[in-house]
Amino acid sequence: MNQRYMSDAKRLSISVIGASGYSGAELVRLLLRHPAVELDTLYAFSQAGKIFSDLYPSVPCDKEFLRYEGETGSDIYFLALPHGEALNLVPALTDAGKLVIDLSGDFRLKNPDEHERFYKQIKPADAWMTYALPELGRDEIINSKAVSNPGCYATSIILGLAPLFLDENSPAKVRSVSCTAVSGISGAGRTSKTELSFSEMSENMRAYKVGQHQHTPEIMQALGTSASNPSFDFTFAPMIGPFTRGIYSVLTVAFDGNFRDCSPSELYSSFYDGAPFVRVRSSMTEVRHVAMTNYCDIHIAHRSDNGPLVIISAIDNLLKGAAGQAVQNMNIMLGFDETLGLLL
Amino acid sequence: MNQRYMSDAKRLSISVIGASGYSGAELVRLLLRHPAVELDTLYAFSQAGKIFSDLYPSVPCDKEFLRYEGETGSDIYFLALPHGEALNLVPALTDAGKLVIDLSGDFRLKNPDEHERFYKQIKPADAWMTYALPELGRDEIINSKAVSNPGCYATSIILGLAPLFLDENSPAKVRSVSCTAVSGISGAGRTSKTELSFSEMSENMRAYKVGQHQHTPEIMQALGTSASNPSFDFTFAPMIGPFTRGIYSVLTVAFDGNFRDCSPSELYSSFYDGAPFVRVRSSMTEVRHVAMTNYCDIHIAHRSDNGPLVIISAIDNLLKGAAGQAVQNMNIMLGFDETLGLLL
Amino acid sequence: MNQRYMSDAKRLSISVIGASGYSGAELVRLLLRHPAVELDTLYAFSQAGKIFSDLYPSVPCDKEFLRYEGETGSDIYFLALPHGEALNLVPALTDAGKLVIDLSGDFRLKNPDEHERFYKQIKPADAWMTYALPELGRDEIINSKAVSNPGCYATSIILGLAPLFLDENSPAKVRSVSCTAVSGISGAGRTSKTELSFSEMSENMRAYKVGQHQHTPEIMQALGTSASNPSFDFTFAPMIGPFTRGIYSVLTVAFDGNFRDCSPSELYSSFYDGAPFVRVRSSMTEVRHVAMTNYCDIHIAHRSDNGPLVIISAIDNLLKGAAGQAVQNMNIMLGFDETLGLLL
Amino acid sequence: MNQRYMSDAKRLSISVIGASGYSGAELVRLLLRHPAVELDTLYAFSQAGKIFSDLYPSVPCDKEFLRYEGETGSDIYFLALPHGEALNLVPALTDAGKLVIDLSGDFRLKNPDEHERFYKQIKPADAWMTYALPELGRDEIINSKAVSNPGCYATSIILGLAPLFLDENSPAKVRSVSCTAVSGISGAGRTSKTELSFSEMSENMRAYKVGQHQHTPEIMQALGTSASNPSFDFTFAPMIGPFTRGIYSVLTVAFDGNFRDCSPSELYSSFYDGAPFVRVRSSMTEVRHVAMTNYCDIHIAHRSDNGPLVIISAIDNLLKGAAGQAVQNMNIMLGFDETLGLLL
Repeated sequence: MNQRYMSDAKRLSISVIGASGYSGAELVRLLLRHPAVELDTLYAFSQAGKIFSDLYPSVPCDKEFLRYEGETGSDIYFLALPHGEALNLVPALTDAGKLVIDLSGDFRLKNPDEHERFYKQIKPADAWMTYALPELGRDEIINSKAVSNPGCYATSIILGLAPLFLDENSPAKVRSVSCTAVSGISGAGRTSKTELSFSEMSENMRAYKVGQHQHTPEIMQALGTSASNPSFDFTFAPMIGPFTRGIYSVLTVAFDGNFRDCSPSELYSSFYDGAPFVRVRSSMTEVRHVAMTNYCDIHIAHRSDNGPLVIISAIDNLLKGAAGQAVQNMNIMLGFDETLGLLL
Repeated sequence: MNQRYMSDAKRLSISVIGASGYSGAELVRLLLRHPAVELDTLYAFSQAGKIFSDLYPSVPCDKEFLRYEGETGSDIYFLALPHGEALNLVPALTDAGKLVIDLSGDFRLKNPDEHERFYKQIKPADAWMTYALPELGRDEIINSKAVSNPGCYATSIILGLAPLFLDENSPAKVRSVSCTAVSGISGAGRTSKTELSFSEMSENMRAYKVGQHQHTPEIMQALGTSASNPSFDFTFAPMIGPFTRGIYSVLTVAFDGNFRDCSPSELYSSFYDGAPFVRVRSSMTEVRHVAMTNYCDIHIAHRSDNGPLVIISAIDNLLKGAAGQAVQNMNIMLGFDETLGLLL
Repeated sequence: MNQRYMSDAKRLSISVIGASGYSGAELVRLLLRHPAVELDTLYAFSQAGKIFSDLYPSVPCDKEFLRYEGETGSDIYFLALPHGEALNLVPALTDAGKLVIDLSGDFRLKNPDEHERFYKQIKPADAWMTYALPELGRDEIINSKAVSNPGCYATSIILGLAPLFLDENSPAKVRSVSCTAVSGISGAGRTSKTELSFSEMSENMRAYKVGQHQHTPEIMQALGTSASNPSFDFTFAPMIGPFTRGIYSVLTVAFDGNFRDCSPSELYSSFYDGAPFVRVRSSMTEVRHVAMTNYCDIHIAHRSDNGPLVIISAIDNLLKGAAGQAVQNMNIMLGFDETLGLLL
Repeated sequence: MNQRYMSDAKRLSISVIGASGYSGAELVRLLLRHPAVELDTLYAFSQAGKIFSDLYPSVPCDKEFLRYEGETGSDIYFLALPHGEALNLVPALTDAGKLVIDLSGDFRLKNPDEHERFYKQIKPADAWMTYALPELGRDEIINSKAVSNPGCYATSIILGLAPLFLDENSPAKVRSVSCTAVSGISGAGRTSKTELSFSEMSENMRAYKVGQHQHTPEIMQALGTSASNPSFDFTFAPMIGPFTRGIYSVLTVAFDGNFRDCSPSELYSSFYDGAPFVRVRSSMTEVRHVAMTNYCDIHIAHRSDNGPLVIISAIDNLLKGAAGQAVQNMNIMLGFDETLGLLL
């Protein structure tokens, strides 16, 4: 593999804008131990002036959070900001020739109407970047200088469905997908809401935004259709459960036609051949199997000849669902091995 | 209401066989505070000789667990035993004219082939009793002297679906139901399995028995069809999550025809009119809303004119899913108010 | 027992001021099921206008929270307000001849200097009411029309130590008490602080206010000494742990003199003879044994002839540590059985 | 630093005996990513024949567990076995000239009577090895070929107390230490006990072995005294709380004499100068700050001029309390940087 940007003379420098939230902090943790880049500057807004390891003492990093004011001194910029904020910052960074990896939803959707409908924000028609889900398109990522990192639910769900939609060997047309996905509470970010307090969420579970979650259109887009004009019935019930990290998606897929002469496990294994972070497993998948890793574990939990498939897909929402995948994308963009700094 | 069995002279006496497990212990707790019956004898096998409150110190009850050897001295018998054991004990109790409420799966299924397929046990063709889900058939329960208490998942799922199948005003035929349901870990009983230890299940979640859970045939039977010859596609993915009590079911229902001119909320509210323990709620349902109660909360989480409905149904697995419903059934059988001893 | 206030004609009516927090909500739950009083009006400030069961759906109560504006129409007033607020409301209520039970710290301390030091608030010298820890002084409570309900940590710690200080048969003088107590997170109230979010507190534990907690002076006062001029070395390390309800106190007590000829268990059992809610247990105490109950469980975990005793004391912080004890006090003030409405 | 054993030609090879338990699995995880050694063979007994990553899917390692039958083919042996088993295996390994790091309690105590009293096992008088707590004696470790890795509670407690006992600048003699320490449930190992199930331990907490825990004598030995003839009053109340990883120790220390002219923080900081894994922190320590790290965080939570100190010490029980410290010891024995493979 051509390590296009690596040199002995100087490691590439990195800044993280929005480094004080959970995804940003995971980025810091991963980048500090990455063998081929150099973490430079941490930007944050409400936490500006504080020291990283005072907020996250388990990570030994004594950098101070600075307020971002348009600096372009690093080679690579990760943005881990609330939705809507990257829209204003990315253009200047790409104009300055920086590599940009944005973890927000701002640049994921090609269709601005869907963006408006699901994010309640208006954005320019050209405000989209390469949708960087490596397992679906390394080539496009390797040729990009600015990419949009997928959403956490979206990563889990798209990877769990992609072979059925995108592999030409898939024998049957999908008629409907019913998706329930339980996220750990860190998915809501580092917040102070009463309804996310320990006393409210311990021994609890609840759905929210059923049928309205903003990851819906990016899932449809990645599967080759759209939320506006879907090629199949898609229902999505997101939930939070009493754990911190992880997303556990159960995907019930009904078909026109059937899988009688096809092994879905073989279809999936073949589709993800060469994808180091997707594991098609013959035994049941659990959140704990992927927590603190960049893996997406997929298990075909049930099949019948004529009836639906039930597929289970699990990730760590902060790693494969955010910071881990962002570093994976950086590795690909820089020509490194995709797994560099991401195993163990 | 005719309180057929109540008298000032003497409260009816109750024995619980299998009183040392979680469901049995909940029965003890409920029956101790019940204003119209008298808890008499507690039977248990592995725990025989121990004192109830040594196992469950939060419940002040110093009765000793006895080994059951065929006694018939109480008026009412609750059985909360592992599947297969009640089959041998119930006939003698009903022959002796006792009121019997069995919490196991032994007598739920009318079809012995389905019983064998899902429970891996053979049972006689006549080994079934009134399926005592009060909201679907109080009349049958009130006229029964021996009833079979529904399973925990089954209670949550049947109540979440019943109006669509059993209400003649339901405007559309169900084509498929995709069900995911997360149970608290107490559903596995008071056990000592490594995979249910705190260290394995904290921050974890996993599915199991997808497509094969033994509550499947009783769900189909209660909805007027069967697992052997189903009238609609039914997939069921049971899961356990990191909480102790509760079942949170998400039911995605697709139709032939549509709900365009019908409000599902009104259909549900009307169907459960007069059911004190089913609450059709306009706001989101959470496990915490029903934990430690006998309620089943139902929320229509999503509807579209032509597409599927998403229905959420939550119960406490040990109460409405087991001991609470058993006491509710006892109240009905005895002609008491259905809620006696079960509120607050 | 003389049930001084009970009558067939009319149950006494109750208002709760501050009914939307966790302690207030527990009061509502307990009072709704209490057989001898009638819950009348719920007052709250930030939640005024909302319905109780919308905030706490597990409790079926459709009363609306009203803003308190000096009403005196009920017979009994419970106040469950943030510290400092009851100081202004109680005088008018007692002047109007109402029974008052205040759950805040406002009226606990006789010494206004200690109040100022630990609460950072100034209060009048006469702003104290009967310290209503029933096990230490039923007679004083029964003769009071306004009482101050103890703090949660204080209840657990005082009950765990009282026999050593207040029983004349205690054979040795206490030289030092080292106390660590872990509280469930509900002790912080219904709040929206980042550091109490599920994501921060799951799998976590931390101490706070070591040596400075405001329950320190009320503990010393109840044991017959004072924080200003203590008769023994007292260190108190409060902590929060990843559970919602409960306080688990470990009390290490060193003596001048010894316990060689005295059984601490007998001393404790004798001291709490006749106290229905204190259980001196010979086996280990756990949080789960007292959660959702009004019990205080005490276990002598270690003794040696010459060395320290280690005593463990556990309560539910919202019941025996707040609302349960408040109802227990109400029962005593009204001449009811102390346990009325509080068992099971 | 002289990297005595490192060479380009060949990395040193490692076997782990007892690799299927939690500490063993952590060793595997750490050694797989260690840059200077090579993980060779995994031995286990009940799990022999299984694949490592089938038990621990988050760690990508497809080695099979073998049954240990006296092999001596590796350069270094870690033993992570139940107490009593290493006693039989270590002599042959040391005779064969292997480096040995034993994680059990078998070789920690110099006094066989104390071993018998606390472990209920008899051992030979010479069955002890260098007590390898690096912060107290790197020199001894560097010169050892076989060491005994400290216990988890012991590590937390000894590090929290050592400056007061072992630093000649400590101004006062310790009169008593009252220690409470809450361990995560993984401390009990990978087991199947009912009382450690999720349903029993969620929302729960309990003490155990108060005054009798087997880490007591190694704590006293490391502090320069003994459990048999202690120089100060020591009480130790171990507890488990509802979290998986971590130990949170609260140490209340009383003195003859005082700390009036001495800053305990300075004493501690000076004592641990040069210890990369001990952090003396001025802000409060939490379990989350050290979980998944090899740090021991220490905070002086309270001091008064004449009264006791309250010191808080937190570690991850499986890392600094077991596998992490074992790798730290290996690094020292091999002349590597102490932190190699242990940061981030």
